Amino acid sequence: MKVNKKHYRSIWMEKTTVCMIDQNCLPFEFKIHYCKNSDETCTAIKNMTVRGAGSIGAAGAYAMLQEIYSAKDNELYSHLQKAKIKIDATRPTAVNLFYATERVLEASKISEDFAIKEAIAVADECAEHGRLIGIYGNELIEDGYRIETHCNAGWLALVDYGSALAPIYAAYDSGKNIFVYVDETRPRFQGARLTAWELKNHGIPHTIISDNAGAFLMSKNLVDMMIVGADRIASNGDTANKIGTLEKAIAAKYYGIPFYVAAPSSTFDLNTKTGGEIIIEYRSEDEITNITGLHNDKKINSFITSPGSSALNPAFDITPASLITGFITEKGVITDNEILKLFEK
Amino acid sequence: MKVNKKHYRSIWMEKTTVCMIDQNCLPFEFKIHYCKNSDETCTAIKNMTVRGAGSIGAAGAYAMLQEIYSAKDNELYSHLQKAKIKIDATRPTAVNLFYATERVLEASKISEDFAIKEAIAVADECAEHGRLIGIYGNELIEDGYRIETHCNAGWLALVDYGSALAPIYAAYDSGKNIFVYVDETRPRFQGARLTAWELKNHGIPHTIISDNAGAFLMSKNLVDMMIVGADRIASNGDTANKIGTLEKAIAAKYYGIPFYVAAPSSTFDLNTKTGGEIIIEYRSEDEITNITGLHNDKKINSFITSPGSSALNPAFDITPASLITGFITEKGVITDNEILKLFEK
Repeated sequence: MKVNKKHYRSIWMEKTTVCMIDQNCLPFEFKIHYCKNSDETCTAIKNMTVRGAGSIGAAGAYAMLQEIYSAKDNELYSHLQKAKIKIDATRPTAVNLFYATERVLEASKISEDFAIKEAIAVADECAEHGRLIGIYGNELIEDGYRIETHCNAGWLALVDYGSALAPIYAAYDSGKNIFVYVDETRPRFQGARLTAWELKNHGIPHTIISDNAGAFLMSKNLVDMMIVGADRIASNGDTANKIGTLEKAIAAKYYGIPFYVAAPSSTFDLNTKTGGEIIIEYRSEDEITNITGLHNDKKINSFITSPGSSALNPAFDITPASLITGFITEKGVITDNEILKLFEK
Repeated sequence: MKVNKKHYRSIWMEKTTVCMIDQNCLPFEFKIHYCKNSDETCTAIKNMTVRGAGSIGAAGAYAMLQEIYSAKDNELYSHLQKAKIKIDATRPTAVNLFYATERVLEASKISEDFAIKEAIAVADECAEHGRLIGIYGNELIEDGYRIETHCNAGWLALVDYGSALAPIYAAYDSGKNIFVYVDETRPRFQGARLTAWELKNHGIPHTIISDNAGAFLMSKNLVDMMIVGADRIASNGDTANKIGTLEKAIAAKYYGIPFYVAAPSSTFDLNTKTGGEIIIEYRSEDEITNITGLHNDKKINSFITSPGSSALNPAFDITPASLITGFITEKGVITDNEILKLFEK
């Protein structure tokens, strides 16, 4: 997608160097970070220079590719086996990472050439799935629609196009007049910082709102549809996503507003029967009690809550399938009853 | 209520001086601010050293009292007429302020003594109403209850006890084992800063949550009831309160959790038939894009959103009466059908 009118992916290769948009610097500074070898790519995954399920998967595959390029021993498979362990350890809960490194490792059983192609395919597929999600999702968007979104499920997180934002980009690029309400998404502000940054760079009209304002805007008939991404979707359609998604889905149902989850089929986990099986991660209370912002052009961290009070920080919630109008995937828009069809050969 | 084990009101008189807790310094510093004359009290109202409907009303009445003490002309009524105009101008939308100054002005028609008693009665009544709301609300709270609240409707805002927090104080003081989930309440963080500060000082177990976490906690059966305050209640029970209240009420209804509004009868406005008549104030986008916090023990303001994106900041929303289980008033707990009874002689 575009930054200063130039096309970028969130991560790409130039010869043997992995290049990525430094997401730790956003939205205050746009900077490309270069990783000359797989150790540097691992560090970039670990310290969240690159973030988002799809982008992390691409980074893992590219790190494997760098290992192939630098491998001196003749035994490529055993070399990559060791490399995979090192790479997977950078983000121990990132399913896309393991999936990506596994694909490259498996391909190396056939030949080096197959492994190289597979590593490149991971990022390309992620981008292509985003493009297709955009095309299918665009069919749901009418001219004049005002769309609310939560968190960041844009191209930064998914190499290109994104999931929740892909239909929004497609609608805008196809000439539709749309407007986006961006939930700021406490506590980490991915909406106010990353989604707003993406939309501004693409020139899409939008405004940031506090998460509290969602239902109010719906009550005033100012929201025509809501699209969010997903971290994991159970086989019954229950969806784990950023904390606050559930609250929006309940409000959308109350006001009869369509609520869509956009995600590639790789996000559906048939081994998880219902949302009840998904364990919710609690993160540090510092995310609630402290905030990093710009003060006199310097990034500083400040303490913002009443001293001596604890904070509780569940990072995700589960939206039941009954609140979800449909799922926008790279294979089309489906309902919860059609999830198994995604995996039919 | 208590601060460092000592009893305080949010505002009180010492001889002819108006004393108030400096709410601009909270939660980072506890400081008493002294106003020697009505001009100083007016400044304190204007710059929000004192805030909250009930506390502002008390400040207005005390400013009138300072005018009585300093009046040199024999014509008390015309002196107070002029004073009222000056005092009312400090917060042009504060209904409690006009109501309080009017009461003192009217009483001055009888005698100076009546006017003095009336000025003192404004704050005392506010505190007494909070105490009664606590007693009635406590009857709804069972031992072991986990209660969620939004914004700050505590004693800081209402001289003593508060509205939404009064039943919580009463339950705790009567020996019940309770726990409070405090919505941080973006954008101004009145929950994370004022409610958390109040509860910590009273020793009531609590934790701060991001506003996004409310429905998640309800879905996990971690919330037994919700109590909020109100800015204005229409005669049909529709309730204007801090932005985000509506979203919580919808979530509470979805999960079958009792949702109470606590407010003195002075908050009910029979001239407003439904919530649809209430105009919602939009405040500065700076409240969303910037945050004040502590950095190296100094208060600093930092910019926290993506540069170049606007923000939309509705300050209140309207919760329809159908989502409200009951209203906790100084005259008892009532439903929306019983509102008119509050005003029967």
